[in-house]
Amino acid sequence: MKASKLAGLALTLTLLAACPAQALTLHDREIPVPSTVSPQMRENVARAYPPDWLVKPLSLQEYARLNHEATRDSDAKILALAKSAGVTIQEGSLAGVRIFTVTPQVILPQNRDRLLIHVHGGGYVFFPGLVGAGEAIYMAHYGGIRCVSIDYRLAPGFPYPAALDDCMAVYREILKTVPAQRVGVFGTSAGGSLVLSMVLRARMENLPLPGAICPATPWSDLSKTGDSYFANAGVDNALVSYEGWVAGAVQAYAPGRDLKDPLLSPVYGNFAGFPPTLLVSGTRDLFLSNTVRVHAKMLEQGVDARLIVHEALSHAQYLESFSAPETRFHFTQLKAFFEQNLH
Amino acid sequence: MKASKLAGLALTLTLLAACPAQALTLHDREIPVPSTVSPQMRENVARAYPPDWLVKPLSLQEYARLNHEATRDSDAKILALAKSAGVTIQEGSLAGVRIFTVTPQVILPQNRDRLLIHVHGGGYVFFPGLVGAGEAIYMAHYGGIRCVSIDYRLAPGFPYPAALDDCMAVYREILKTVPAQRVGVFGTSAGGSLVLSMVLRARMENLPLPGAICPATPWSDLSKTGDSYFANAGVDNALVSYEGWVAGAVQAYAPGRDLKDPLLSPVYGNFAGFPPTLLVSGTRDLFLSNTVRVHAKMLEQGVDARLIVHEALSHAQYLESFSAPETRFHFTQLKAFFEQNLH
Repeated sequence: MKASKLAGLALTLTLLAACPAQALTLHDREIPVPSTVSPQMRENVARAYPPDWLVKPLSLQEYARLNHEATRDSDAKILALAKSAGVTIQEGSLAGVRIFTVTPQVILPQNRDRLLIHVHGGGYVFFPGLVGAGEAIYMAHYGGIRCVSIDYRLAPGFPYPAALDDCMAVYREILKTVPAQRVGVFGTSAGGSLVLSMVLRARMENLPLPGAICPATPWSDLSKTGDSYFANAGVDNALVSYEGWVAGAVQAYAPGRDLKDPLLSPVYGNFAGFPPTLLVSGTRDLFLSNTVRVHAKMLEQGVDARLIVHEALSHAQYLESFSAPETRFHFTQLKAFFEQNLH
Repeated sequence: MKASKLAGLALTLTLLAACPAQALTLHDREIPVPSTVSPQMRENVARAYPPDWLVKPLSLQEYARLNHEATRDSDAKILALAKSAGVTIQEGSLAGVRIFTVTPQVILPQNRDRLLIHVHGGGYVFFPGLVGAGEAIYMAHYGGIRCVSIDYRLAPGFPYPAALDDCMAVYREILKTVPAQRVGVFGTSAGGSLVLSMVLRARMENLPLPGAICPATPWSDLSKTGDSYFANAGVDNALVSYEGWVAGAVQAYAPGRDLKDPLLSPVYGNFAGFPPTLLVSGTRDLFLSNTVRVHAKMLEQGVDARLIVHEALSHAQYLESFSAPETRFHFTQLKAFFEQNLH
């Protein structure tokens, strides 16, 4: 060990030996199952990749079949989850868009006149119908607050801007009965990105902005830009890598589009004037950079933006086990955040 | 791709196929130089590991020699940095501990009656003397505020609790002239851990707590516990891995000690009643888990704790380039945080 190594710890560039920029080569290695996750979450964190994680579905038929397979038995399971969570789900429609209103057994007094809009994830291509409302069940249960989950149209049948149009239609309709400052908007992954795009669109349309938003692990950059797309590839066992269905979803949702359009990749947007924002990710999350890049830009633009990064969790893993302490922590933080910031 | 893969994205554990818990095997791969860091920071982020990064110095003599080598020319460089940053450095002593008082050219009006205590990093074994005050130069410059940097005694010559004792002695002395609510404490790495331990100790000693603290990428767990010790090994090009000098520093600082003692590994401490706290890390940081574990525990214990994670930066890399946008962002955020929270 020479001075050059110590210099790596030191404070000034002038102490550092100049090296040419180069890619980092990592050799075969094992990452043990983390000891710092709860027993309930351990199984999810330690799950092996599915053997077919590099498959990239492209046709409408393939997506329809996959959604059918994945959700075949899900309605009954979602209803069972709702029952054990003590929430009721009512299907309805706002401005022609199908919604699910999720109501907890007890609406907390402070939340009586508030409403959360939920935008589900699934890469703009997955989770039509009731299964998409699962996250809203968690939120209603842990938060003691009503949630309206938007069953927006999916790609590839309905590419951009269909999903965003549906979300905006619901938002506009809700503003007719609930003041914007009492409305929070939250969602995960593609849903998190839609949350950000909704605020950008609301500002463009001179609509009042929601009182607070929580874009969790938002898919804020559809292009493969951001270090965790590379550094966490293969580390994240939920999304695994950009090359699989993630890239397929880009082609399905945004064919021929400029992926740096802020309404598609909100990290390129201007966040000045955004409401208080809570961002969430995990240390193993393929979208960690998608999250922290939005956070840093928001802070630079003066937004009251907060960040939580879950220890050892991959993408959206706080949605995989209803009663895990990590899940409780996640939704309890969202609850506190919305209670603190909604009118 | 089958339903099981989609289920990985889905919301309920019931949809997931159960797999036995297992370590993750990653094969050879390259991580490109990130496009999301500034040109000024690129060279640091892309720097190759030093060839001797696995060396684990153990003897007092080795540490003395390394510190001598690393800091041989550093005084002149630190003084040049201070000059270009427009700050003055005055050596002094408080309660028998050597300090450096770093004063910016212009103390902002709101900071006139405030003081920041700086606790430098270096694994409890490196950076004696002036070189340790480098981070305080950055802070005084970007923050427009006076900083007192503590030149605490180093291991292995002076193992735990010498460093903490020195920091407490300075803190107690400063409280005689500055109200605690106007005192902020900040530091990086081992310094960040000392910041946390100082508050734990201050509470044990019934001293008033500082008004706000910023433990940046704190070495909050001396044991090799936390996922990023594994997942970011070899990804972080500053610390590289636990196995090198990091493990050596544990042996130097805490020989024979219980590494889960909260005064050594504050992640095991009780943070209830802590002042507002800003934690900072980087997506490639070996200490990312050390940071987010403290943050989560603080939030659970009701502390007003905030987190910033720098895109693509390894451990403490915001200290490597004085004028990089990432550095400016880092210290500007600390400035805003202390201004918001100090009396």
